[in-house]
Amino acid sequence: MRLSLEPSLDASDYRFVHRVRPRFAETDAMGIIHHGAYPVYLEEARAALIAAAGHPYTAVRRDGVDFAVLELYVRHRRPLHFDDPVDLHLAVGAVTRTTFQVAYLLTVGGETRATAVTVHGAVDGAGRPARLPGWVAEVDGTG
Amino acid sequence: MRLSLEPSLDASDYRFVHRVRPRFAETDAMGIIHHGAYPVYLEEARAALIAAAGHPYTAVRRDGVDFAVLELYVRHRRPLHFDDPVDLHLAVGAVTRTTFQVAYLLTVGGETRATAVTVHGAVDGAGRPARLPGWVAEVDGTG
Amino acid sequence: MRLSLEPSLDASDYRFVHRVRPRFAETDAMGIIHHGAYPVYLEEARAALIAAAGHPYTAVRRDGVDFAVLELYVRHRRPLHFDDPVDLHLAVGAVTRTTFQVAYLLTVGGETRATAVTVHGAVDGAGRPARLPGWVAEVDGTG
Amino acid sequence: MRLSLEPSLDASDYRFVHRVRPRFAETDAMGIIHHGAYPVYLEEARAALIAAAGHPYTAVRRDGVDFAVLELYVRHRRPLHFDDPVDLHLAVGAVTRTTFQVAYLLTVGGETRATAVTVHGAVDGAGRPARLPGWVAEVDGTG
Repeated sequence: MRLSLEPSLDASDYRFVHRVRPRFAETDAMGIIHHGAYPVYLEEARAALIAAAGHPYTAVRRDGVDFAVLELYVRHRRPLHFDDPVDLHLAVGAVTRTTFQVAYLLTVGGETRATAVTVHGAVDGAGRPARLPGWVAEVDGTG
Repeated sequence: MRLSLEPSLDASDYRFVHRVRPRFAETDAMGIIHHGAYPVYLEEARAALIAAAGHPYTAVRRDGVDFAVLELYVRHRRPLHFDDPVDLHLAVGAVTRTTFQVAYLLTVGGETRATAVTVHGAVDGAGRPARLPGWVAEVDGTG
Repeated sequence: MRLSLEPSLDASDYRFVHRVRPRFAETDAMGIIHHGAYPVYLEEARAALIAAAGHPYTAVRRDGVDFAVLELYVRHRRPLHFDDPVDLHLAVGAVTRTTFQVAYLLTVGGETRATAVTVHGAVDGAGRPARLPGWVAEVDGTG
Repeated sequence: MRLSLEPSLDASDYRFVHRVRPRFAETDAMGIIHHGAYPVYLEEARAALIAAAGHPYTAVRRDGVDFAVLELYVRHRRPLHFDDPVDLHLAVGAVTRTTFQVAYLLTVGGETRATAVTVHGAVDGAGRPARLPGWVAEVDGTG
């Protein structure tokens, strides 16, 4: 297990925020957002983060690099509901030559709903491990 | 609109059947299976149909052919629920040099739940219209 | 088949527009947005339309009404790709005492990608057909 | 973090196995199964496990109990592809009065693809923590 970041519950510890509105299609018969939707929200927020850093994902992929998901951890504290204004707070950390991690805090109206961590590895077009582009270390989301 | 097949409500008019068990993740806050899951069920059944005809989809794609979805129509008659044993009855029809259609009847315990039709066009690796492989005309599901 | 609207290809024929950015999770191995994502985009746009008309979906459901999807038709003209700025143009029509239809035009940078029609029926909390709330007739999206 | 199980890489350490065939809709533009599909596979296998233990999920829910997902961890070792015969091996562990964990090993043809752990808490119809039904301790998948 490479996963090492511990997501802070304090939104001010994060430097990037992205809002998602859960879709009705993502609700389940318990009346809440199904946990299977969270990895997709995390990915959308991550793509927004690297785009905001000047590296749209389509450009990254055109350069022959992909950021494979190596590990994913989500802790559900309170459920999300349809159309909640969900703020995903992101911070990049634990950057190595080939991997990086992202910590996430999900809040609605300032109230904590979930935390998460993902670990990513750079891979080339054939899916082989590759060196992380230098700019990733700059997208630290924490300063 | 190319779509022309009219799905029969009589299961004996179909020659191929594929069973799907709706997942809990596919339920929604109304307590039923979300309509967004149906195109995925149709596709799974279609892949099973052409695999049963000796043409697994991975082999078809390796041959440089894809069957793009040109049109999709679904009529919901009664809802599906989590874990229902859903029988999808399929029949191929309206085959042209570049396109074909599939009619679907969805039943649970013999009771009609939905009907559907999809229209497909052969495309090459670059997404350009291509000639339909000859074997498609044989997968008629009706005789 | 109740479906009767014929979606115009002229965006100026629609009065409501909603933008969606396809997610990477919605791409498929053909490199395009999977057709299974379209019903979800349509629903998101529809929820935005009725919210803009002063009737957020959560309020509608609290009133004990749901708009079940009776029929869905999508015609794919050109594919969508990850992160495309997709404009969904909507128009309500064919309103009866218990049903209404929505026509959709999907464009990217003014270029047509798909058209669609959905037919909806009002149902009560138990899923039985119900009378359409009066305000639906006003949400005509066309004037 | 409650998550404490460490999934074995030896399939013989698990007592229950459930097979899933990844759908084409679950592929992404990298040509592999999107990581967002894994939580759904885990849930399908979990439902199969408790059904095999004589407690179909619909019956469990009818009894007013739900097993909320509190935590989810997935480690991706090698990708899955469309239509792979994926064997999910499951073992229940770390059972407390209100929570239990499930460890997962995903293999294709005996080759490890991923491991995962989920942590679940019993909740009543209103989403409040509840006592775990006694039978959960018996579904240990390891004895």
